[in-house]
Parts: sequence; C-alpha cells; structure tokens
Amino acid sequence: MISSAHNPKIQWVRKLQTQARSRREEQVFVVEGVRLAEEALEAGWQSHLVLFDQGLSERGKALVDRFRAWGTAVEEATPEVIASASDTLTPQGILAVVAQRSLPLPTEADFILIADGLRDPGNLGTLLRSAAAAGVQNVLLPPGSADIFSPKVVRSAMGAHFHLPIQSLAWEQIEALVHPSQGQRLRVFLADSAGGPAYSAVDLRQPLALIIGGEAEGASQDAIRVSDGRLHIPMPGGVESLNAAVAAAVILFEAARQRQLRS
Amino acid sequence: MISSAHNPKIQWVRKLQTQARSRREEQVFVVEGVRLAEEALEAGWQSHLVLFDQGLSERGKALVDRFRAWGTAVEEATPEVIASASDTLTPQGILAVVAQRSLPLPTEADFILIADGLRDPGNLGTLLRSAAAAGVQNVLLPPGSADIFSPKVVRSAMGAHFHLPIQSLAWEQIEALVHPSQGQRLRVFLADSAGGPAYSAVDLRQPLALIIGGEAEGASQDAIRVSDGRLHIPMPGGVESLNAAVAAAVILFEAARQRQLRS
Repeated sequence: MISSAHNPKIQWVRKLQTQARSRREEQVFVVEGVRLAEEALEAGWQSHLVLFDQGLSERGKALVDRFRAWGTAVEEATPEVIASASDTLTPQGILAVVAQRSLPLPTEADFILIADGLRDPGNLGTLLRSAAAAGVQNVLLPPGSADIFSPKVVRSAMGAHFHLPIQSLAWEQIEALVHPSQGQRLRVFLADSAGGPAYSAVDLRQPLALIIGGEAEGASQDAIRVSDGRLHIPMPGGVESLNAAVAAAVILFEAARQRQLRS
Repeated sequence: MISSAHNPKIQWVRKLQTQARSRREEQVFVVEGVRLAEEALEAGWQSHLVLFDQGLSERGKALVDRFRAWGTAVEEATPEVIASASDTLTPQGILAVVAQRSLPLPTEADFILIADGLRDPGNLGTLLRSAAAAGVQNVLLPPGSADIFSPKVVRSAMGAHFHLPIQSLAWEQIEALVHPSQGQRLRVFLADSAGGPAYSAVDLRQPLALIIGGEAEGASQDAIRVSDGRLHIPMPGGVESLNAAVAAAVILFEAARQRQLRS
C-alpha cells in the first residue's frame, strides 16, 4: 500500500501527467478511470503500472484483477495519494501507465482528418472522439498541435486513441500521403468560416481529407497549399464561427450521412 | 489606477467570477476580452464597470473610450490586478461587469433546444454557441444545468448570450411552452445514443424542439415524459457516444440543412 505522495512511482506518474517531454522520452502516457483503463486493456495496449485505491467500484476491482492476471504491476495506494497523481478533480480511483503505440495506417484510406494547429487539449480530444465515431480512418496532426498523450486530450477523446490511427507528421509527409505520386489521390478540403461552397453541397463520398484549423490562427499557409478546395458551414444564426471540434463534427457526420446513403 | 488586488471593486469582480449566488443576487456577470465586451456594448447590454490595463490592444483602447462615452464607470488597473480578477490564464486586459438580461421569447418559435442537465460549463457554452449559429430561436434549461452566467459558459458561448434567448425553467413551464393547450405544438425529439430513427431520416423542418441530455446521466425522466419521440446519430466508427455539445450541433445543423433546402 502506497501511502506517501513522495513514493517514486507516484512521482513518476505525476511527471508523466505534467511533462510532455517525459511522455515522449519514455513513450508512455497515463489513462484515468475505469472505462479508459478497460479500453486500454481490451485493445491490447501494454500497461506498465496500475494504481488503484479502495474507493474503486466493483467493476474497477474486477478490472484490477484482470490487469494482475495479465502480469501488469498493480499497486494499491491511499485515495489521497491517487488524488495527488490524478489530473482530475474527481479521480475514479484507478490510473494506468500505458505504453504509447502508433496504430498501423490503413491502406487505401478514403476518409482522413487533418487537425491543423489545434492547441487546446480538450478541443483536440473532443475532435478525436468525434472523428472515431464518424468513421474517420486516420487522423494526421501537423506540427503545432497539442500533445495527443496529454491527460486532457486522452480524457476528452474517450478511448479514440485505442481505435483510431493518429499520426504527428510534417506537412511534407502529409502531402505525400494525401497526394501520392502513384495511387489514389484524396480530395483535400479546407474548412473555412466563409470560403467555398456549403459543406452539404459538396460530394463528401469521394476519397476525402478534411483540414480543420485551430480557432486562434485559422488556416496555416501549409494547409492552404495542400488543400484542393474550401468548404464552409452556413450559419443561419449569423454567428461568426463555430468551435473547431464542433465544426469538424458537423462536416464529418455530413460525410458519414452521404456515405451511408450511397451504400 | 487600481494597483491592489484588495481594492473593493476587484474583490467584487472576483466574487462575481467565483460565486453563482452573487451573480444571481446582484443580477450581473463578468465578460472578459475585447470581443465579448464589444458584443455586450453593441447588443445594448448595460455595463456597470469596466476594468482594463495598459497592455490592452488598440482595438481594446478604442472600446474603453466607447464605454466611457456611454457613461460606464471605467477604471485602469495594473496587469497584475487584472490577472487577479480574471478567470483565464491569459487575460486580454479588459473585464466588464454586465447586467444580466433575459431576451424576449420569440413568438411562434419553431426551432428550440432544451439542454437537459448539462453541468459542464465549457460544454454548455459550446452548445449555446452552436445553437446560435444553427439558427435556434430559443434555448430552455431545465433545473440541473450549469449557471449560464458562469465565466466558463460565457467564454465558451462566444457571445451567444447577447443574441439568443436562454431561459432557465421548470419542466412544467417547458412542457407548457412546447405543448401549449392552444396554438402550435412543437414536435419534441429526445437525442438518444441508440433509440429511435437516424436523425437525418427525420423531418427536422417541422416545428421542432430538440432535447439533449447531459453525458453523465443521460436523459432524465422529465425529458422522456415531455418528448414525442427519439432520434439518434448513427456512428459508423462504433464509438459509444459523442460529446453532448457535439451531438447537439450535428443534429441542429442537419435541421438547418433541411430547412435551407426547403426555402
């Protein structure tokens, strides 16, 4: 039973929660809560350490047993210690240190999302969750995004990490993926608050990559260069813009709707 | 020039930022940043006090002059004092204490959103922003929502407060509005992660109220009672659910799309 927040394992978890560099160097990240830890286990992602406290639910305790059965190092700690290692105000009593993985790129992907400069972790996480739900096959992150393994991204993404390939790439690599010299070229649309046709008037059934820009700066020069065209969401209420994760979801689910009609 | 965080005006602003009860009793709230303060002024909402610091942008300084010209009490403070009164980590150098207003109910509204139990302020604010953009005419909040005048709701809503009537009502009052004994009855749909037809297969051009439930508890018994039917968003990616604000936006913009086709 770990009863001190100064315990080296607890210090390690705190460091991973707060330092992107530590996560990157050690290639691990922290998931919190029964649901996410369950998803990590069920998706076959390796956990190096699981911490829990006695306040854990029955479902959580069963999960701890499953981690033990898989040979994962499991330690009980006091609720105060778990709270000190947690990134949330209302910890669920379980934390897992999980090895980062890069899911394999789908071959012949025809529904890709490029999130350009989304620096807000909650926004990026919500975007990943929506993309996974809408059936996006691959998310590409150019330089300047929030760290996808930061606690808030992981929490808001609600498990998208375990199912959706997400890759941080340079723009040149992104360009080579969407506009390969051989093979299928994707039609790359840049979501713009004003430019181009209405999103619902565009054929979104074609092999497609959608670029969503961050709210603060809008589209980058690279995004403009890589895109084949723009589209926008008409706003009958006359508001200036939408939250970036919301705008992405509206377009992605319109694509899902059109694709479902086709099939 | 206010140079102490103990100044009574600063203490007042801090209290309004942190205490829903103070906001309610005094019927005021705080807006931060040039854009929101500008919107408050231009929408004709009365400000009782404006605080700014020297780091303010030119546009912000011009705004301060406009507040002065309207007879609003304006005070300069040091950046440290503004930071102490701010709810954000990166204050923009201007804060306004604005009188709460209830915008008049539209007569014959045919596009209403009911946000049931959205306790997360960022989520509620994003929902209000999306609803305003999609052309929703009225937002009804049953008991159990976050305080719409809390700093994070105001910030995420990006000015929706100034254009969109938002009302906190008991379920009985909501029922009387959507299903009046005389006059137009709205068709009330409850967004459900699984039940009912696909949202895009439903005629959303008819006079409509959409109920979105909070993520934690889902639909309340009252919501189920008031609704005429359910609808859901098909998720090709097989994810369990969407963020509540995202789900609402997807359905509201599908309604906007259908309504635009009609016209």
